[in-house]
This record gives sequence, structure tokens and C-alpha cells, in this order.
Amino acid sequence: MIQIKGKRAIVLASGGLDSTTTLAIAVDRGFETYAISFDYGQRHKLELHAAKRVAEALGAKQHLVVRVDLTRIGGSALTGQIPVPKGREADQMKREIPVTYVPARNTVFLSLALAWAEVKRAEDIFIGVNALDYSGYPDCRPEYIEAYEKMANLALKETVLGRMKIKIHTPLIEMTKAEIIKTGVNLGVDFSLTWSCYDPTPDGKPCGLCDSCILRKKGFAEAGLKDPLSL
Amino acid sequence: MIQIKGKRAIVLASGGLDSTTTLAIAVDRGFETYAISFDYGQRHKLELHAAKRVAEALGAKQHLVVRVDLTRIGGSALTGQIPVPKGREADQMKREIPVTYVPARNTVFLSLALAWAEVKRAEDIFIGVNALDYSGYPDCRPEYIEAYEKMANLALKETVLGRMKIKIHTPLIEMTKAEIIKTGVNLGVDFSLTWSCYDPTPDGKPCGLCDSCILRKKGFAEAGLKDPLSL
Repeated sequence: MIQIKGKRAIVLASGGLDSTTTLAIAVDRGFETYAISFDYGQRHKLELHAAKRVAEALGAKQHLVVRVDLTRIGGSALTGQIPVPKGREADQMKREIPVTYVPARNTVFLSLALAWAEVKRAEDIFIGVNALDYSGYPDCRPEYIEAYEKMANLALKETVLGRMKIKIHTPLIEMTKAEIIKTGVNLGVDFSLTWSCYDPTPDGKPCGLCDSCILRKKGFAEAGLKDPLSL
Repeated sequence: MIQIKGKRAIVLASGGLDSTTTLAIAVDRGFETYAISFDYGQRHKLELHAAKRVAEALGAKQHLVVRVDLTRIGGSALTGQIPVPKGREADQMKREIPVTYVPARNTVFLSLALAWAEVKRAEDIFIGVNALDYSGYPDCRPEYIEAYEKMANLALKETVLGRMKIKIHTPLIEMTKAEIIKTGVNLGVDFSLTWSCYDPTPDGKPCGLCDSCILRKKGFAEAGLKDPLSL
């Protein structure tokens, strides 16, 4: 693993397991990290609070929350009135793209991260996409990330002038949820700070039944670890 | 020119000359148009009012304004406190990327347009980029647009399932400003509805001195036409 002391990296931070482990990996590789989160009209703000806690705990130099209103665009249970599906099997998640899919979400988020990368002169962008547990999501696949990176290097003043070269890092892309959790634990991540649930109870507890809760539960079980959030 | 009656197109509409002519071209090609504008923290909202007038006048089926806060990302005179440059020559604009450059702006805007395209099942996205007058802007060049289109077709549920194929149309990319204006006039565009100035006077008049005012003035002069805004 290349250690690049003090080089800046933008890290997409949602407050969940994957992006938290990704941030820990970026820190471990010696980057000075800039965490970016999105207030996009998701059903609750608990994940933004988690992202803030995580960014602080892992020593991010800055944590930026960008507002981008995806609710008017619609097309997703995460930004609209469609109910979040409950009680699906992990295998089913691999076969079908659920109604919690947000159209072009990673493309929108990476684009805002890219804008900040140019301002911060950060050539490295880390995103915690995972092609195994979410194999149905188009914007979590390696070929998408490669095409995004190619486009990014044609998009910016600094890249076109040859003063920056953008690299999109996806350290989790081939990992199982259990491997992601074990990697995080090995890097000292405190997963009690994270948040995964799509649809918390009115008193702010994880529902335990949405896709995200189910994958988290399965991941901790397979890692042989106890979830500090005790789902 | 292929006439595609009733097919839907998303058109990026800023209320300026270029995007207005682009919208008129999309309408002329037989598309049912969906205009999208961005409230991104620009210095004034006059262009959003212009975009609304233009969308109505040209018969867009819907006009969506998406809020995306680029001010916190920074890096531009259009979203920050850096003054807008005045009195530059058109030739100078071709050589130097000015401080009004907004990092990754077209990438962010196209990504939001792409999200809406999937929701609306619109395979065609029109953007009024122009590689002649703004040759310094990386995200106005054909190679950037090609890379964006390639990425877009790997990014969406509908494209990956083979149910949609995204095409990014850039009808103005090789036109001079005078040609853009003449094309608009031939298609019946009322340019009195448009707005170009980056930095209007306190009483809401165009400044006449920013890059955008200067290019507009030069364009109307070269087209041998009078600007209805009488800059």
C-alpha cells in the first residue's frame, strides 16, 4: 500500500459502515482527509450527524455538508413518499434494484466531490462503493467508476492544464460486508458512531428491517462481531 | 435533421442566449422538452426568472429549478466574494479561464439533469455548451461531452438494464455567438426574455462590462441585429 503523507483526499462520508471504513483507509494511507456529505432530502438527518461524528473521530481536516435537493427530481423511496421496503432477503437485494435506488446519486455526489477536489487541490477521491452486496446498483460497479474517472480528468481546469490528475479510489469495491467491518475494526473504527438505517423509528432507533439494517446485521454476524448499535 | 415527435428531452436552461437557442432547437427537432435550471448560489436570481420566462415562451412541458449549494464549495467569482472581472477583450477570454469559472459546474449540472432524465424516461439531454467563445472552459469541449455520455450510460438503472440510451446533444458547440443568435431568431426566439449579465446593477440592469455582456454585445453586432435588451 502506498503511503502518501500529507496529500489531500476528498472522502464521501454518509455516516454508514462503508464510507466510515473508507475514511479510515484513506487516513491509514497517509492522506489528509476532507469529508463531504450531502443533505439531499433523505428521509432523516441522523446519517448526517453520524457523518459529522465519524469525520471528527477519524481526524478529517474538514467536514463539508452540501445541500442538493434531490426531492424535486424524485424517483426514489429515499427522497419521496414511496415506503422503504422491509424484510427483504440479502439475496433478493443482489438480484433486484430496490425502490431505495436514487437516480444518478453517486454521479451527483461524485460531481460535487470533484468540484471540491479542484478547489482543495486534492487529486484523490475516495468512495465506499461496493459491487458485491449491491450488485444491482449500476453506479457501484468498476466500469462505471473507470468511466467517471476518465470524464473527471477532462472536466476540470486543473486537470486539463495538466496540474492535477484525479484518481477515484474504491477500496471496498470487492469486499463483503463482513470484510468491510473487520477492516474498519482493525483500523480502530468505532462503529457505534455510525448510522445505517434508512427508516428509523420515531424515537430515533434503527428499524432493523430495511435493506441497510439487514445487510449490517448480516455483516456483523459473518464477521463474528457484535454491533455496538445492537441491532 | 431527425424529427422525433413527442420524444422527451431534458434541456439545461440558464436563461441566457445559448441555452435559450438550445431549447428552441430541441423544440424544433420535435422533442417534448423538460427545462432544468439550477439555483446554485449564483450572484443574482435574474437568470432564474429569465429561464422561467423562456421555458414558458418556448412551450416546455415542465420547468424545474433544483437547489444545489455551490457556495460552500467555493472557488469561483460567480458563487463567492471575488469580484467579477470587467472590460476584458473577447480574445482574452479565449486564452484565459476567468475567475468566473465554477469548478465542475457542467459536471454537477449534467448529473442532476441525468437524474431527472432517468425519472422522466428522457434519453436526450441538451446543453448549450460552446467551444468557440469559451475555448478555455474544459467542460465545454467535445471530448469532455463524449466522456460524460459514456459515463452516463454506465450510471443509471435504466441504461444498464438496456431500457434507455442517453445522448448528450450540443447543437451550439461549433457555432459563433452571432450564429447562435441568428439561429435563435430564425426559430422565433424572443431574446428580450433572456438574461446574460453576471453582475447586474443595483436596479437590475445588465452591467455591460462583464465577459457575458461583452460576448452578447459582440454577438449581436456580428449578427447585424439589435439586442432587444439594448445593452
